[in-house]
Amino acid sequence: MYKVKVYVTLRERVLDPQGIAIKQSLQQLSYPEVQEVRIGKYMELTVEKSDRNIDDTVKEICAKLLANPVIEDYRYEIEEVVAQ
Amino acid sequence: MYKVKVYVTLRERVLDPQGIAIKQSLQQLSYPEVQEVRIGKYMELTVEKSDRNIDDTVKEICAKLLANPVIEDYRYEIEEVVAQ
Repeated sequence: MYKVKVYVTLRERVLDPQGIAIKQSLQQLSYPEVQEVRIGKYMELTVEKSDRNIDDTVKEICAKLLANPVIEDYRYEIEEVVAQ
Repeated sequence: MYKVKVYVTLRERVLDPQGIAIKQSLQQLSYPEVQEVRIGKYMELTVEKSDRNIDDTVKEICAKLLANPVIEDYRYEIEEVVAQ
């Protein structure tokens, strides 16, 4: 069994209106020190062992479904866990 | 300057319809080994040094705005960076 953590973030040059809105709210909520906020997705997947290579599987899953390669970057961490 | 990474996830017992939908899509996309998907938010904040303690500030920001304490958990990592 694998525990996979996937981080999907907007590419640097892509505008992040949600992040801008949160930054402005924080500054109005008396946190002027907050200079920038970038919002992304964090996903935890539980994946059973199979005959396929887990790294290839995760790369495919990210590229096909979890991230939009035009505007997003992704990175992931794979941890093998002993099934309870 | 600080780079803060915030991870907001749904609490264990909270249903995650988005995660269920993605799991089903993955299984239909020929990834039956995917057993569970949990979706959360990943945020990167750039925060200037101020007279306030950064840990307290981040805790407050998470509790007040970034996470809904009723259904979400949050954790964060603070990294001091040298301003370019």
